[in-house]
Amino acid sequence: MKKFSEFTLAEKEAFRQKALADYQAFKEKGLKIDMSRGKPGPEQLCLSNALYHTVDEQHYKSEDGTDCRNYGGLLGISETRQLFADMLGVKKENVIACGNASLTLMFDYIGQCMMIGCGDKPWSQQGKIKFIAVVPGYDRHFTIAEYYGIELINVPIHEDGPDMDMVEKLIQDPSVKGMFCVPKYSNPDGYTYSAETVRRLAAMEPAAKDFRVIYDNAYVVHDLYDETDPLVEIFSEAAKYGHEDNFIEFASTSKITFPGAGVAAMAASDRNIAEIKKRLSVQVISYDKMNQLRHSLFLRNMDDVKAQMKRHAAIIRPKFEMVRDVLEKELGGLGIARWTNPRGGYFISLYVEQGSAKRVGELCKEAGLTLTTVGATYPYGVDPEDKNIRIAPTFPSVDELKTCAEILCAAVRVACSE
Amino acid sequence: MKKFSEFTLAEKEAFRQKALADYQAFKEKGLKIDMSRGKPGPEQLCLSNALYHTVDEQHYKSEDGTDCRNYGGLLGISETRQLFADMLGVKKENVIACGNASLTLMFDYIGQCMMIGCGDKPWSQQGKIKFIAVVPGYDRHFTIAEYYGIELINVPIHEDGPDMDMVEKLIQDPSVKGMFCVPKYSNPDGYTYSAETVRRLAAMEPAAKDFRVIYDNAYVVHDLYDETDPLVEIFSEAAKYGHEDNFIEFASTSKITFPGAGVAAMAASDRNIAEIKKRLSVQVISYDKMNQLRHSLFLRNMDDVKAQMKRHAAIIRPKFEMVRDVLEKELGGLGIARWTNPRGGYFISLYVEQGSAKRVGELCKEAGLTLTTVGATYPYGVDPEDKNIRIAPTFPSVDELKTCAEILCAAVRVACSE
Repeated sequence: MKKFSEFTLAEKEAFRQKALADYQAFKEKGLKIDMSRGKPGPEQLCLSNALYHTVDEQHYKSEDGTDCRNYGGLLGISETRQLFADMLGVKKENVIACGNASLTLMFDYIGQCMMIGCGDKPWSQQGKIKFIAVVPGYDRHFTIAEYYGIELINVPIHEDGPDMDMVEKLIQDPSVKGMFCVPKYSNPDGYTYSAETVRRLAAMEPAAKDFRVIYDNAYVVHDLYDETDPLVEIFSEAAKYGHEDNFIEFASTSKITFPGAGVAAMAASDRNIAEIKKRLSVQVISYDKMNQLRHSLFLRNMDDVKAQMKRHAAIIRPKFEMVRDVLEKELGGLGIARWTNPRGGYFISLYVEQGSAKRVGELCKEAGLTLTTVGATYPYGVDPEDKNIRIAPTFPSVDELKTCAEILCAAVRVACSE
Repeated sequence: MKKFSEFTLAEKEAFRQKALADYQAFKEKGLKIDMSRGKPGPEQLCLSNALYHTVDEQHYKSEDGTDCRNYGGLLGISETRQLFADMLGVKKENVIACGNASLTLMFDYIGQCMMIGCGDKPWSQQGKIKFIAVVPGYDRHFTIAEYYGIELINVPIHEDGPDMDMVEKLIQDPSVKGMFCVPKYSNPDGYTYSAETVRRLAAMEPAAKDFRVIYDNAYVVHDLYDETDPLVEIFSEAAKYGHEDNFIEFASTSKITFPGAGVAAMAASDRNIAEIKKRLSVQVISYDKMNQLRHSLFLRNMDDVKAQMKRHAAIIRPKFEMVRDVLEKELGGLGIARWTNPRGGYFISLYVEQGSAKRVGELCKEAGLTLTTVGATYPYGVDPEDKNIRIAPTFPSVDELKTCAEILCAAVRVACSE
């Protein structure tokens, strides 16, 4: 196929007319579809309906005999800590099983660093501090930093992870206190960090002695295919350099069971667990152990988790593939857009012509399709090149999704020809 | 009965011998009982077993049709907000239904004031700040303040609530930023604030324009008898003075359903709700709505709540009465101790001779009875007069409790005669 840049003027005009006609046809349908968030669809939720029945009058004690209904057990029940330990490839002693939201844990851990510190004075007493934002990335990471007044510095992601040359340079600045990473099936590109990237992260020698990587392993088991993207475990790698304290890892069952009613966990070094425990002992009597038990009776081990994730994949893989097929069919070969082909996670990243992503978002909105706010994948909501669009294909049905992708492609073609 | 202070030397010696013999007899039994925390007993937990079965394949949507399994709904589901609104006597719009721990909400609200502020610069940027601690009080309130480096100033509680003359004087100091209150069945005395105390709290004109009362209504429906201690609703009283922003109220189902797996909520003015919502939108996608729904299907309205609290009272009232009977029998009339007779809540407060509470705690420990750490009911764990002992009668069985109370009384008599 001929590239758009090689089109004659007449071909460009014909392309424009066709794009406008296609777009107009969608607009006239008066659709209303939301593809803005990485939200599992109803079919996926039903995969966890067994959760309704795992705890009852006979099943309310954890394996060590703790009555999960009552107070107590600051670090979570043993079997849930073990499940997350197995999921993340760490020891149970280095895991705390918590409430329903890993986002809250990240927000709170950064709050701890701000108010109490982590190896130096509280961050809030060190003047302007900065975090590395791997971009495009997860908007909610950025808003946490923005909330706390932490300045964000963009570092681009490549197929093998963050641009480590840039990272290694930036961390020479002692006011750079940390970074956000989604190491597997990154949000929104779906890239997985290579062994070499993980090694370089582990080996980092930041100038700040209170540097922390918020290592959000949100999609650790979220494969779309039998073949997983391999990810080297960060703590064992960091141990080679004595850098285990630099990393706090987060995970949850949000996209394994019920998104709003799952269990989240964090993994950290012995020293960091001890520090977090001090705070927890002031902050909470215990997390919801009943919900932990409910989950641990449903997901007894990694085999159960893997089987569950295969069931999810069977539902969402066709959605990802539908989007890619439409993108390929409508935009392939034109050289006006590129997109990622993740083997897991929750998103596809679409890159359009520089300066046209916002326009694409507007066109979609006018045609009834709500995308993730364009720009949200960058700090302060500003994509410096205005190129990136996050596609969240899980919530709509396959049929709806076909329409979504077609509207999106029509909008891209319109924006390109404007 | 003759008072101990009026005893002859011989009578005192006989009293001492008897006390030592009684105490020694308990010690030889090698008991091991924990009466340290306000923890419901197993029988009470079973009152909420219906919670296992309220949500299922047919019941997972809130009354407005929200799928409680999925993300969304920052302020909690409508029916749970309404339930807490009815419980606290406020409007649903002024309630946020959250996770399982009101303690976490208080910790976090104070964190918000520290980092972001509430009507002035962040508390953390205002030098040394102080809170009023109504004493004796709840140890976990004090540890939150201590964690954040907030200095605590003791104000004694009377039968009608905090010493308001002292409070009104202290709040003239702009570095005094707030106070902790448990307005109904206070921990540990079981006192309920009088209408006049609530009026004076509502009328307070603190010098600090960012003053906040952490109004922990933990025992709002926790009556032991049909007759409740009346408590004037704080926000309607505060509205008379335009002071609604001064109060943030907290409550939970922890001692209504499952302590470790309940639902907590906060109530606040329109302006404070808006401020809290800003923070929440960064901190969490949504709280566990399934657990909210689980609760709202079990406790559909205040009639259900009241019926449930009557069932609790039937279990724990005999425990409170057993403790009082033993105290009366063993210590009554001697003038060496006094204790409170609450009509609700979770504790009885015992006041022994000045300077002897710690000794009583030691003696109990040596005899196998763990009390709440003596001193813990005061900031920094220091009871200036070393007089107060918190009795938590709910967890042990009535029989165990009889033994507990007898050991405690023997220890009081030994300590007194030393």
